[in-house]
Amino acid sequence: MKVLVLGGDGFCGWPTVLHLSALGHEVAIVDNLSRRNIDIELECESLTPIRPLGERLRAWKEISGNDVKHFNFNVAKNYQRLLDLINDWQPHSIVHFAEQRAAPYSMKSSTHKRYTVDNNINATNNVLAAIVESGQDIHVAHLGTMGVYGYGTAGMKIPEGYLRVKIETDNGDHVENEILYPANPGSIYHMTKTQDQLLFFYYNKNDGVRVTDLHQGIVWGTQTKETRQDERLINRFDYDGDYGTVLNRFLMQAAVGHPLTVHGTGGQTRAFIHIQDTVKCVQLALENPPNRGERVQIFNQMTETHRVRSLAEMIASRTGAQVDYLPNPRNEADENDLHVANDRFLGLGLDPITLDDGLMEEVTDVARKYAARCDMNKIPCVSQWRTARKDSGTSVVEEGLKAAAGGS
Amino acid sequence: MKVLVLGGDGFCGWPTVLHLSALGHEVAIVDNLSRRNIDIELECESLTPIRPLGERLRAWKEISGNDVKHFNFNVAKNYQRLLDLINDWQPHSIVHFAEQRAAPYSMKSSTHKRYTVDNNINATNNVLAAIVESGQDIHVAHLGTMGVYGYGTAGMKIPEGYLRVKIETDNGDHVENEILYPANPGSIYHMTKTQDQLLFFYYNKNDGVRVTDLHQGIVWGTQTKETRQDERLINRFDYDGDYGTVLNRFLMQAAVGHPLTVHGTGGQTRAFIHIQDTVKCVQLALENPPNRGERVQIFNQMTETHRVRSLAEMIASRTGAQVDYLPNPRNEADENDLHVANDRFLGLGLDPITLDDGLMEEVTDVARKYAARCDMNKIPCVSQWRTARKDSGTSVVEEGLKAAAGGS
Repeated sequence: MKVLVLGGDGFCGWPTVLHLSALGHEVAIVDNLSRRNIDIELECESLTPIRPLGERLRAWKEISGNDVKHFNFNVAKNYQRLLDLINDWQPHSIVHFAEQRAAPYSMKSSTHKRYTVDNNINATNNVLAAIVESGQDIHVAHLGTMGVYGYGTAGMKIPEGYLRVKIETDNGDHVENEILYPANPGSIYHMTKTQDQLLFFYYNKNDGVRVTDLHQGIVWGTQTKETRQDERLINRFDYDGDYGTVLNRFLMQAAVGHPLTVHGTGGQTRAFIHIQDTVKCVQLALENPPNRGERVQIFNQMTETHRVRSLAEMIASRTGAQVDYLPNPRNEADENDLHVANDRFLGLGLDPITLDDGLMEEVTDVARKYAARCDMNKIPCVSQWRTARKDSGTSVVEEGLKAAAGGS
Repeated sequence: MKVLVLGGDGFCGWPTVLHLSALGHEVAIVDNLSRRNIDIELECESLTPIRPLGERLRAWKEISGNDVKHFNFNVAKNYQRLLDLINDWQPHSIVHFAEQRAAPYSMKSSTHKRYTVDNNINATNNVLAAIVESGQDIHVAHLGTMGVYGYGTAGMKIPEGYLRVKIETDNGDHVENEILYPANPGSIYHMTKTQDQLLFFYYNKNDGVRVTDLHQGIVWGTQTKETRQDERLINRFDYDGDYGTVLNRFLMQAAVGHPLTVHGTGGQTRAFIHIQDTVKCVQLALENPPNRGERVQIFNQMTETHRVRSLAEMIASRTGAQVDYLPNPRNEADENDLHVANDRFLGLGLDPITLDDGLMEEVTDVARKYAARCDMNKIPCVSQWRTARKDSGTSVVEEGLKAAAGGS
């Protein structure tokens, strides 16, 4: 299979490229290196010493014998380059990672809000418009987020993308219907992914574009089978307040003897997946595309859920770190439950790596090994969701369920 | 009240500006004259001889004594100008018409799809981000479209924005909930309005921005009380295949002795509103903003529904025109019912102008009067929704209702 990976230099993109290349697929990358430019802006860098993309690709050729081409242009801005590439290279599938992917970064300022919306929506629209204009039947696998659902469900497992509801007709009957799960994004970043859903819905309906949308949980872990083969292939590890996910920040804090910083009560429940499972899921999605004429296929790409304070306690118990509770900069509920259906990937053979299995390896092989590269000043979260906080972070569905439970 | 009208030189914008100014509000316009530039691109112009905006505003000053300022910049591209203007001018309300508003134009080519998405989404995001950054409590009234719902409802009146549904919990109970009506856009243009809804939802939830979204039907009529006062104030009348709405094209065809061109069976049912009622509705929306802390307020801004072939027959019977049935370039159902709730504007005192009342005035005062300016070659619709058509234009809800009726 020929696979074009948009955003193939990023945290999920790079190990996906290697995984697909190792399986024998012909892979090419489009990446404008925006994530590395943001490192420069934030005056921060990956804890792991990631190499320039050219060096990465030369090392991969040396190790695997496989060529992976890199095209350096902006998918959101350079439509003609993208269209020409699709026409010339004729990919079977496009994996679309070419979006700004950090919620705190998207909330830093109006400039960051505007960059995130402009980049993410135009990138997705360009990919879809170019596929239609090319006349080719290309399957798009897109990295969405669990955050399109809004966190929190009371009494209901989050389904894979579509929700069955009953609607009352004018004569008082109720009829059943399946709708896209009502969106309740928690940041500008998450909102762009809910807008992406509408782009996919429309181009699928009008033009028959085949799309798989992967609603991914928080990715943990750093290395995959391929990125471990040579230090020049090492994957990115972000620990800063903008791009570092909660687990990576805890690991880093533990490794350098900093207290683990929990925002709010730590009662927020989140969905997680290991980076090795991420690349496996993308592979499974590419091997199992929807048929022509089928609606957008949605998978929940996550393997387990945890409360933030449980994660902190898990790491504290293994490393002896302290836990500090700080005010929460996000506009969200302090406590939420989360039950998520992920039957589709399990049905396709995904065998999840659990936090219990992989956590200490992360502490020793990554966080402690590269601890000297850590800039402790970059650990705190500084983005504020808004100046004056008020409490309204529950999901649309949860609010309804709560209201219903209260007798409305 | 100080009202900033974004897109105040357009078909809905200009009469809104005059109506609000005549009521004694202080009005300013932001408009980059994009609609006039599109006339140049399409080699077509308004049937009515609209004057340059400067001349329009000088005439209005002469007639009413009222000053209306014009700021010429692109809301989607020039964020800093917008923010500075909001900070300096301190509007109470912003009326947001600054979007590309023709479905056929949005489908002409990849370039037009991309312009529509880029312009509309960035314009709306810029308005909301600037309001938040300004720290002012400004009410936004936005022109949405009935098309966010998707046309067609079987057995159910389209509610005003929000739909009550029952959701099954994991233990088999059903709970009631109110969700944003599931979107089913019929073109790239309509899709951008569904994406706008998510922007409004998010900024309302996170930042408390007060928003009224007006889901408008197809506007007919040309003149309002104010635009009739002097020919220099005349409003735009589009009859071309891209910007001309179905009714205007019929009127034009009747006036110049061209057969009325119905696409498909003409069984498509659409919602309509007269331009005089449009400006009244915007006034009512501005006078009745949601309170701080309330969710996005949604009104259906339409007054009657008709099948396309009934419109053609109505005009044919009054003018003696022939009716021609042509293939439909849109990807939509040939026949649909449409029942729409519009209780909210009626409750605020809207007294609708009906097609029966106003139709012949349009034929004689506008279409026949300016018939010599018509370019007959511009009447046909040339935008194709896609190359190979297939039938899937029903609404999400309608599909569910049909499936349910069939016993699923």
